[in-house]
Amino acid sequence: EKGLSIKSAGAGEYEIKLKGLAQFDYRAFIDDGINAGSDTSLFRRLRPSLEGSIGSLIGFRITPELAEDQTSLIDAYVDVRFNPAYSLRVGKLKGPIGLERLQSANAIAMIERAFPTELAPSRELGAQLFGELHKGEITYAIGAFNGAPDGRNATAVDADDNLEWEGRIFFEPWKANANALSGLGFGIAASVGDKDGSGNAFLPRYRSPGQQQFFNYRSTVAARGSHLRLSPQAYFYRNQLGLQAEYITSEQELIVNNQIASQTSLKNEAWEVTGSWVLTGEPASYKGVERPFRPFVLGQDGWGAFELVGRVGELDVDDDAFPIFADANAAATKARAYGLGLNWYLNSNLKLVLNHTHTDFDGGAAAGADRRVEDTVFTRLQFAF
Amino acid sequence: EKGLSIKSAGAGEYEIKLKGLAQFDYRAFIDDGINAGSDTSLFRRLRPSLEGSIGSLIGFRITPELAEDQTSLIDAYVDVRFNPAYSLRVGKLKGPIGLERLQSANAIAMIERAFPTELAPSRELGAQLFGELHKGEITYAIGAFNGAPDGRNATAVDADDNLEWEGRIFFEPWKANANALSGLGFGIAASVGDKDGSGNAFLPRYRSPGQQQFFNYRSTVAARGSHLRLSPQAYFYRNQLGLQAEYITSEQELIVNNQIASQTSLKNEAWEVTGSWVLTGEPASYKGVERPFRPFVLGQDGWGAFELVGRVGELDVDDDAFPIFADANAAATKARAYGLGLNWYLNSNLKLVLNHTHTDFDGGAAAGADRRVEDTVFTRLQFAF
Amino acid sequence: EKGLSIKSAGAGEYEIKLKGLAQFDYRAFIDDGINAGSDTSLFRRLRPSLEGSIGSLIGFRITPELAEDQTSLIDAYVDVRFNPAYSLRVGKLKGPIGLERLQSANAIAMIERAFPTELAPSRELGAQLFGELHKGEITYAIGAFNGAPDGRNATAVDADDNLEWEGRIFFEPWKANANALSGLGFGIAASVGDKDGSGNAFLPRYRSPGQQQFFNYRSTVAARGSHLRLSPQAYFYRNQLGLQAEYITSEQELIVNNQIASQTSLKNEAWEVTGSWVLTGEPASYKGVERPFRPFVLGQDGWGAFELVGRVGELDVDDDAFPIFADANAAATKARAYGLGLNWYLNSNLKLVLNHTHTDFDGGAAAGADRRVEDTVFTRLQFAF
Repeated sequence: EKGLSIKSAGAGEYEIKLKGLAQFDYRAFIDDGINAGSDTSLFRRLRPSLEGSIGSLIGFRITPELAEDQTSLIDAYVDVRFNPAYSLRVGKLKGPIGLERLQSANAIAMIERAFPTELAPSRELGAQLFGELHKGEITYAIGAFNGAPDGRNATAVDADDNLEWEGRIFFEPWKANANALSGLGFGIAASVGDKDGSGNAFLPRYRSPGQQQFFNYRSTVAARGSHLRLSPQAYFYRNQLGLQAEYITSEQELIVNNQIASQTSLKNEAWEVTGSWVLTGEPASYKGVERPFRPFVLGQDGWGAFELVGRVGELDVDDDAFPIFADANAAATKARAYGLGLNWYLNSNLKLVLNHTHTDFDGGAAAGADRRVEDTVFTRLQFAF
Repeated sequence: EKGLSIKSAGAGEYEIKLKGLAQFDYRAFIDDGINAGSDTSLFRRLRPSLEGSIGSLIGFRITPELAEDQTSLIDAYVDVRFNPAYSLRVGKLKGPIGLERLQSANAIAMIERAFPTELAPSRELGAQLFGELHKGEITYAIGAFNGAPDGRNATAVDADDNLEWEGRIFFEPWKANANALSGLGFGIAASVGDKDGSGNAFLPRYRSPGQQQFFNYRSTVAARGSHLRLSPQAYFYRNQLGLQAEYITSEQELIVNNQIASQTSLKNEAWEVTGSWVLTGEPASYKGVERPFRPFVLGQDGWGAFELVGRVGELDVDDDAFPIFADANAAATKARAYGLGLNWYLNSNLKLVLNHTHTDFDGGAAAGADRRVEDTVFTRLQFAF
Repeated sequence: EKGLSIKSAGAGEYEIKLKGLAQFDYRAFIDDGINAGSDTSLFRRLRPSLEGSIGSLIGFRITPELAEDQTSLIDAYVDVRFNPAYSLRVGKLKGPIGLERLQSANAIAMIERAFPTELAPSRELGAQLFGELHKGEITYAIGAFNGAPDGRNATAVDADDNLEWEGRIFFEPWKANANALSGLGFGIAASVGDKDGSGNAFLPRYRSPGQQQFFNYRSTVAARGSHLRLSPQAYFYRNQLGLQAEYITSEQELIVNNQIASQTSLKNEAWEVTGSWVLTGEPASYKGVERPFRPFVLGQDGWGAFELVGRVGELDVDDDAFPIFADANAAATKARAYGLGLNWYLNSNLKLVLNHTHTDFDGGAAAGADRRVEDTVFTRLQFAF
């Protein structure tokens, strides 16, 4: 297992674990000009983590994010583990909606998550009941949260009075069997709540695979009313093969210039399908390739594990957003992308990644033209302990 | 004891301790409208802590605050322990003024501290001599600091050239005796120094029990000259009973529009009395209920400890502040509050809190009206290790 | 050795080390008025550090900076140690240019580094190949980085597409010998790259020994084109004597008001010489006085080690900067400084420092006058574990 664990002497009551995740990238935009990001080295994630448990009842985790110019909190929660079937998690945690969002950042197939994650909440503040039923064949989570906008973290304090309810149920019916379907999982997630306000704490922006914003609402737009998300999702892992598919809709009532008469419900949607194949024979999984058969060791002949990845996806903004809620000259109405990747797992701690993505857009440039195509080559050194 | 301790092998010279405090709240304002805060989940405090000692001479502590959108430093100091009677503490620490301010955040009786804390300095930067005399019957601290405004932390760098001297002496004359007065402590604290500047680094704002600002100075006001605080304070703990009382005045010379002729000394004051009763029989103390007799254990019949709390208090701004230094239509001149609370200590690590507070104000609304009454229901899950 | 180390049981594969550096200063400006800083207590550095290794191949370090109002990342890297002769370091690290910049912050001779450090990059983001040749007689580093401006840290994301190459080679030819020259080291460092943009991410400001800015470019100026640095450097340590000397030029192409016709290459330069003498006989070194012969122990008669330090230096801005690229009424063209210091090492963990610096300037005040002379008295308590 990863992390360095310290236990209290004697009763083994106390356990504290130090873990860390570092993702250092070099990112280049090909044939770049207008709308491309800078070619740059950067830390994408730098997250030391303090985890622990006290007896069997209490668990906790504190994870700051050091990658950006200012340190912030990414995850922090206390678990009260009454039973495998129902535990309570209180604090800052991932909203239980997106399949790839819920996948650990060190295990995602490509350098950035796909379009559906742009419509799912990132970190939420609140309380969640969760557990496993039927020997883990069913997992569920349901929580009441402040309500983060699509693709964003909740701010430290909610800016409106409204709660958002989020829930997810996921099935792996043949998990315990050794048959061809044992690696199949499927489920559905949804959120429901009101949002009432404007700015980054209420409204999303949508970003390309190169993490460049291609859509946002006009500054005169505010969330005013119901916000609904729905996401069917599935994965399938068998031997070296991995498949992941996710669809999500996010429907939000909006107004413009504070005019109630303008109230409109807009529905944006996104999907993705990702396939992967481990060339060196290790089993694929939702946790990535966990342990290369022949890790890279200096002076010996192991080279670790290699995995190929391919992905397609689309994000489609409601056409009714234009021209009142968004500016067609600056915000695209649709983005389509494919990506190709190679993951090299040198050992359980070190992973190198090479990704190419290609994205084209409908609209988003002056005079009805399409936003410039985006082509990226991103690389990553990932270190986890 | 709390925290996980690591000692160097052999001489026991080195000791490092990891501790943590998490306070996660859900806060609601009843019948809220204008001037109320949002109903929200939030981390009020999230403070991992690294403490240690090197031999008997040196101790240290580093505690960041992760609860807000950006991580900051809350406490950090090095102690040089010449003797129990005189030690030197250098760094960022609580200014030795307020009784409840000096109480550990995990032990305070209610979710937020009372009005006098709004007039005491929070964290200071500087050096403090402190110690215990007469077998701990007298404790004292005296320090030279940058000089934080009432109710605020000092900024990382002082914005004027002036020092502030702060001191406190506290008596527990019958501490070692087993008589009815053994839990009585009383003392006095004072600060004296000059402040010269405007803005948040020099001027206070005062907040309600719901942490909503109800008073601040006009933006044209600056601190210019002497700042004095005086605070008599006492507590009494006997068996299940706890009592705490604190009074403070803060007197600051101010000018407006940079006109020396306007220089005026304004004196604000606050008091509070808090009483508590541990229903389950554990002893009350300045450190809270440290160890429930029958902690909550899954599948067994202990339920932990329960404590009832009641509080009254007042904060009174100098009437001469109006209308030149403060705007009576936006800043209240007086706030009166009571609070009721229930603390449930499940075990030594986990505490649940339910609080109701009610506050009314004199002035602070348009056309001479009073600021709207504030009613809150705040809840907290506190986890400390 | 410093720091507290935790190893995994058994194979000793995993090692994690906790370290810390705290520098707490009281800083006073003598005869201060216009242009002086505030007299203040402050944390100059507060850096807990998590270091570790996994087997012999991988090392890492994560060091946040807690001294300022917001926590940030100071260092973080992963080392892949193929061989003492060539290792790869990836992440955020010191650019391999300045001799005193590369010296550990807990070992520098005076409270602030000298003028050449203002022209060297501080932290860079990127990848560096480094190693030792000939039994450590030659050390080298060469890296490709985002390219930090003079005296600044790189921002989390590069704001232009350009790389900067930085390299350094350093010789200690008689390192292994016990002769008079065994403590002699000399070398040369250089950087080459393009910069294209304006603001703090591209342009430097230069600061006095009291850390007050005395030079910056006009806000209409942008970096546009080649940036070159060259720095010959040397040190010599023998018994109690320490000597350090460093020269650096930084030459950057600039434009004003976005006019290509204004493109000009300006060359700024700085030098310093520092000498030190350990009064109590311990050996001087690039790592400071590591272990006092007779550390201070309570109730015993050791007093630790004492060291005297003297320094002179100069920073000279290209005269062609005026008046188009810089305002002679606000930016000085030259600064000359000397400094005197006393270091008291109580033991291996605790160091007290007293510094006086005197700096005079050419230009930088209204109507062609010289900026006011700066005289400082800075003190420091440094605690490292």
